[in-house]
Parts: sequence; C-alpha cells; structure tokens
Amino acid sequence: MFTDKMILRIPGPTPIPPRVQQAMNQPMIGHRSGQFSELFARTEQRLRPYFGTSGEVFILAGSGTSALEMSVVNTLQPGEEAVVLVSGAFGERFAKICERYGIIVHRLEVEWGEAVTPEALSSFLADKPQVQAVFATYCETSTGVQNPIRELAHIVREKSNALFIVDAVSCLGAVACEMDAWGVDIVVTGSQKAFMLPTGLAFLAASKRAWDVIDSKKPLAFYLDLKAYRKSLADKTTPYTPAVSLIFGLVEVCNMLDEEGLPAIIKRHELMRDMTRAAMRALGIPLMASEEYAATTVTSCHPHDAFDAEQLRKVLRTKHNIVIAGGQGHLKGKIFRIGHMGFCEPLDVLQVIAAIEMSLQQIGAPVELGAGVKAAQEVLLAHV
Amino acid sequence: MFTDKMILRIPGPTPIPPRVQQAMNQPMIGHRSGQFSELFARTEQRLRPYFGTSGEVFILAGSGTSALEMSVVNTLQPGEEAVVLVSGAFGERFAKICERYGIIVHRLEVEWGEAVTPEALSSFLADKPQVQAVFATYCETSTGVQNPIRELAHIVREKSNALFIVDAVSCLGAVACEMDAWGVDIVVTGSQKAFMLPTGLAFLAASKRAWDVIDSKKPLAFYLDLKAYRKSLADKTTPYTPAVSLIFGLVEVCNMLDEEGLPAIIKRHELMRDMTRAAMRALGIPLMASEEYAATTVTSCHPHDAFDAEQLRKVLRTKHNIVIAGGQGHLKGKIFRIGHMGFCEPLDVLQVIAAIEMSLQQIGAPVELGAGVKAAQEVLLAHV
Repeated sequence: MFTDKMILRIPGPTPIPPRVQQAMNQPMIGHRSGQFSELFARTEQRLRPYFGTSGEVFILAGSGTSALEMSVVNTLQPGEEAVVLVSGAFGERFAKICERYGIIVHRLEVEWGEAVTPEALSSFLADKPQVQAVFATYCETSTGVQNPIRELAHIVREKSNALFIVDAVSCLGAVACEMDAWGVDIVVTGSQKAFMLPTGLAFLAASKRAWDVIDSKKPLAFYLDLKAYRKSLADKTTPYTPAVSLIFGLVEVCNMLDEEGLPAIIKRHELMRDMTRAAMRALGIPLMASEEYAATTVTSCHPHDAFDAEQLRKVLRTKHNIVIAGGQGHLKGKIFRIGHMGFCEPLDVLQVIAAIEMSLQQIGAPVELGAGVKAAQEVLLAHV
Repeated sequence: MFTDKMILRIPGPTPIPPRVQQAMNQPMIGHRSGQFSELFARTEQRLRPYFGTSGEVFILAGSGTSALEMSVVNTLQPGEEAVVLVSGAFGERFAKICERYGIIVHRLEVEWGEAVTPEALSSFLADKPQVQAVFATYCETSTGVQNPIRELAHIVREKSNALFIVDAVSCLGAVACEMDAWGVDIVVTGSQKAFMLPTGLAFLAASKRAWDVIDSKKPLAFYLDLKAYRKSLADKTTPYTPAVSLIFGLVEVCNMLDEEGLPAIIKRHELMRDMTRAAMRALGIPLMASEEYAATTVTSCHPHDAFDAEQLRKVLRTKHNIVIAGGQGHLKGKIFRIGHMGFCEPLDVLQVIAAIEMSLQQIGAPVELGAGVKAAQEVLLAHV
C-alpha cells in the first residue's frame, strides 16, 4: 500500500485539496505587511456568507476549543447563569469551559445519539429567567447528531433574553447557517472540517446583540479578548500573530467554496449522508442518529454485539489504508464513525463502504459483499 | 522583480526552508491516530535540548502571546504579586496579561534600547518579598536588546522565592538557553522565529519548581490549562486539536537544527549580528543596543534626523524586494530593524546591507556605497 494514500474518513481533519496545499506553499510574508492586511481583510469578508452574517468573522490561531472558550469569556462573568445543551462530548466541553470560569451551568442533557428538541429547550428555559446565554452544538461530532439550530434559536429568542451561542465546528461550511436571520448570536467553527484546511485555525462570528453584551463586560482572558480582535480587524489585521500559511490556504478554500456554491455544497453533504446511511442499513448496522437529526458530515454506527467496532477500524486501517473514527467518552470502543465532509465526494463514500464490507468479512462478521455499495449507488443514481 | 522572491529580513516570521515546506505537504493524518502520537511524542523530546531542560516541552496551537498568557494563568492568582521587567513592547505585553487577571504588577522599566541589569533587578526585588513570579524578555524584539537571562535568573534564585518566567519568542533556538542549569522556571517561544516554521505554534517548558506551583493552583483558563497538556502528553497527544501540518514541519526543523548543532547555530547568529552591526557603524547609522546586550537575531537602528526610516523601508521593499521591520510603540516610524534569524545565512546579511546602501542613496541620504558591505565582509572573513 502507498503510505501516502492513507485515506482519511474521520470527522475532521478532512484531506487537504491539492490546490489548497499549493496555496499554503507560497513564500512566507510579514504578518504586519500591507500585502497580508489586504489578503486578510478580503478573506474575512468572504467567510461571512457561510456564517449567514453581515458582521465580521474573527480568525484565530488556535483549535476549535480556543474559539469555544472565546465565546464564553467575552459574554459571561463568574456567577452568571448559562444553559448548556449537552447531547455528546462537545456539548459537555462547553459546560466544562463555563464551569472553569465560575459560571453557573444548567445542563439540558439528552441521551447520546439524540437531539435536543425545541420543546425540551422551551420547557427547560421556562423556570430559568436569569440565564444569560444558551450554548448548543450544531453537529455533535461524537454522536453524528445535528441539532435543530434554527428551531432552537427561535425558542431562545421567544422565551428568553439570553444570547444563543453555537458550536458549529464540525459542520459549518457544509450546512445552512443563517445566524442573522435565525437569531443566533455567536457561531464558532474550526479550519479542519468542512473548510478543508489543516488544523490550527478557529473562527468566530458575533451578532449585534452579542456585541452589546460583549461591550458591557470585562473580558475574562487576554489572547481570547474579542474586543482586541475587533479593534485590529478595523485595521485589517489581528492583535496577535496570525497563522499566515493557513490563511494562504484559506484564500484558496474560499475560492473552492464560492465556485461550488453553498447550496450545492449542502446538497453534496446531504447526498453523502444519505448514501452512507442507506449502505449501513443495507448491511444491517444500526445507526445512532435518527433520520430527522442525522448529521450530513459524519455518520455514527453502533454495531452492539454484532462485531467489534475497534477490530473493524483496525482492519480498515491496516489492510485497506482507510481511517475511520471510533467512539468518544462512554462510547469509546463501542461505535465507529464515518466522516464524509470537506474534500470528500460521493465516489469517496462508495469506496469507504466497499472497504467496510471487505473488512467485515475479514473480521468474520456476517456481510453480503456489495449490498451496502449497491444501496448507496441507488441513492447516488437517484440524485444525478 | 519576481514577487516570489520577496526577501523577509524582519524579526519573524523567518523565510521557510524548502525542506520544511516540503514536510508540511505530507497528506493530512488524524491527530488522534497512533501515527501522529508517535511523531508528536518524539518531536517533543527533540525540542528539550533547545530549552536546556529535561522536562516536557508543551506545543500549543496559538501565537506566542497565547503561550505568554499560559505562563501567567497557571502560576498566579488574582491579587498575587509579580515583577515584570519591561525593556520594550513585549515586556509591556507580559505586564498587560498579568493585569488582565488582577495580578498586582511591579514594573521594572528601563529605557527602550537598554537591558535590565542584574544589579537593577537585585535592588528592585529587595523590598518586594511577596512577589510570586518575575517575568522577563530574553530578546526584546522591539529594541534588539538581549537581556542577560542567565545572570537575572541567578538574582531571582538568590533574592527571592519567585518563579522566573522568560519570554524567549524571538530568540530560542538561536541562543544559549539552559533553563534547568540557570534556574529558569518557564520558557516560552513561538514557531516563526529561529524555529523557521510558519506562524501558528507556540511552545512552553516548565521546571520542577514551576510544576509544584502549578499543581497547587487553580488554572485561570481552559484552553491554556497546562495540567491538561501534561496529562495528554503522557498519552503522547494534546488535549485539544494540534496544528498537524505545522508539526510535520517541526519534525524537519528538528532535523535541520540537530544537523547544524546548537553551538554552530548560536555562532552563526552571533556572526550575523556582528556583521550587521559592523556594517551599520561603517555607514554611520546609530545602533540602539549596546555591544554587551545586542541581540543576535535582530538589529535595531535609529537614524535620528539623518534620514527617514520609513522611507528607507519603502524603497527597500518596492525597489529591491526586501522587507525589514519598522519600530513599535513610541518608536513607530523612527527606527528600522533588520531580522537575521532562522533560515538566514551570512551571505544573506551581505545582501540586505548592499540593498540598504543603495536605498540610502536612492532616498538622498549620504552614503558611501560598499562601505557597509566591506565592514561586514571583514567580519565574515575573520570567522571563516
């Protein structure tokens, strides 16, 4: 096997498109140069449609978690109250960040694999008038569930004065996001998912209402102080050293996203989700997320006692050079997750399904070779 | 002029060596894979000699400032006292970070262009027994001054029980640093200086004594919580998503550093400093730093009324494709700074000097063409 052909089908990082790789090879430039400032300011503006906002998108050298923390430390103070929707590992991370800062957290927890429904949020908020912010996860990467952000935003707007803050790390750029129209106040994402870049950048956009709150509060941190980023962005730059080579790549990512167009990108991801789910059903492998709330970027499968998920992943990796993800938290070792996001096309999905079928046979699990591929082909043919 | 041949002679980012660029082009891998873990753990260990420590070096997705903040939020609590040595813009940044967290800051300030002497620190510490940490800047990038860290560490060890925390962003990898032997407790640096990588990574190493303090305190932040990094490093990984492509590059940087060897790297930088200073003296351009405390990675020049530093920079950039840095803070527009660090050799120094001479003539400043180059050549010839 070519070691250079290791195929990443995990929910981030995505493989890097060659033209993005090429863009990152441009010679280094000074991050305080006019050349960089022009590039940076133009690129920031090109990101806004993917967030669905007319406001600024702030670009941070850091992981997605750094931007999650940024959304907390600029909007809340110790002793204030927040509701955190916890439907998996990343909802739990939001709760932990809040708690680190002495914020009183009300967890709205659902079983891993389920979504938080608008009804559940509505009744949860009813007796909590003090809540200053509601945190939600758009795509819960650990379970493959996509929470109904638009509807949840509607509830928050209707039932409270809280800010609605959304972790969209593992889906933004692949899903609809109209933060201005829906009434979402902060959206956070990372570079290595649907944005098809290496890991190392995070993004955050904030609404006018969020800024009113931010302006009224003392930031609880320094590197993550949003007001410093806004002040610098007005001068087309960043307060601290930006990750220049990744921003070179981001320019080319914007070109690719704009060429395909967000509606087509969303459809491509829906198609890949439908193909993957059809295949898993045909192979008799239970899906974690329901039809209604299945993520378009990652599919989680729970084989229960039918076979060992870790054994499947190992054979896929060692015999077929394909990497899929395992479980997180209490699902570690029990489930497998197929990433189908970013630089990934329907034919790539057929490939990973075919490899899963062979691997199942190789680990001695009952499998009808070709059955999953056929089901996915039928979905694909109905769309093209 | 080839736009791809723009020559960076600023105090970071440094140009990227082709073999490092090449290494960053490897296909993306999962950051939770065994393959990445092995690579990461090996590379972390290879960094230790450049810090002069037998302890772990933590690698952070973020700018140098994020690691400066990391050194604060893990070692101090609001209301505790710190001494910050301020000899320029980056010392001032340390003070501001501390103040953001409600730490009582005692600034030991010296004129920009001067170093903090051991004597000054000794008397400053004398009446401050409560001080829990002393913060210093190894190379103050904004003035080209290298503070005498070894001697300052000796004073801190002798006169107080405080931790000694050092910002070595713009020099580590190019200067002697024996944190264990000298009694330095935390050393912080960034990727885009002597480590010859793009911007986007930061590094931090901590002493046993620092860890005793860190273990006794509640971290004031989440993404920058050092205990989380230590726990993950024991499992050969990071608590949050690492910047994988930059770490691919870092492996090759370690190869380059190890091949040349730290003693030779230090000598190369000293030589480039000496060449640059000899040239500026020959051209009659005043140097900001004294002989004793001149940085080996950046040289700051203050033309006073002889010519306009900004005009010189502009002609260098537009007519000769070479970028040098201007001043920061109250020196903005008044000085120019030549970076000679990382992927930079003595012949590169001759080139920038020759271009400065021509630019001086082009802006109508008095200059003897070749005089600076000759002085630098003589320094170089005496060394080879």
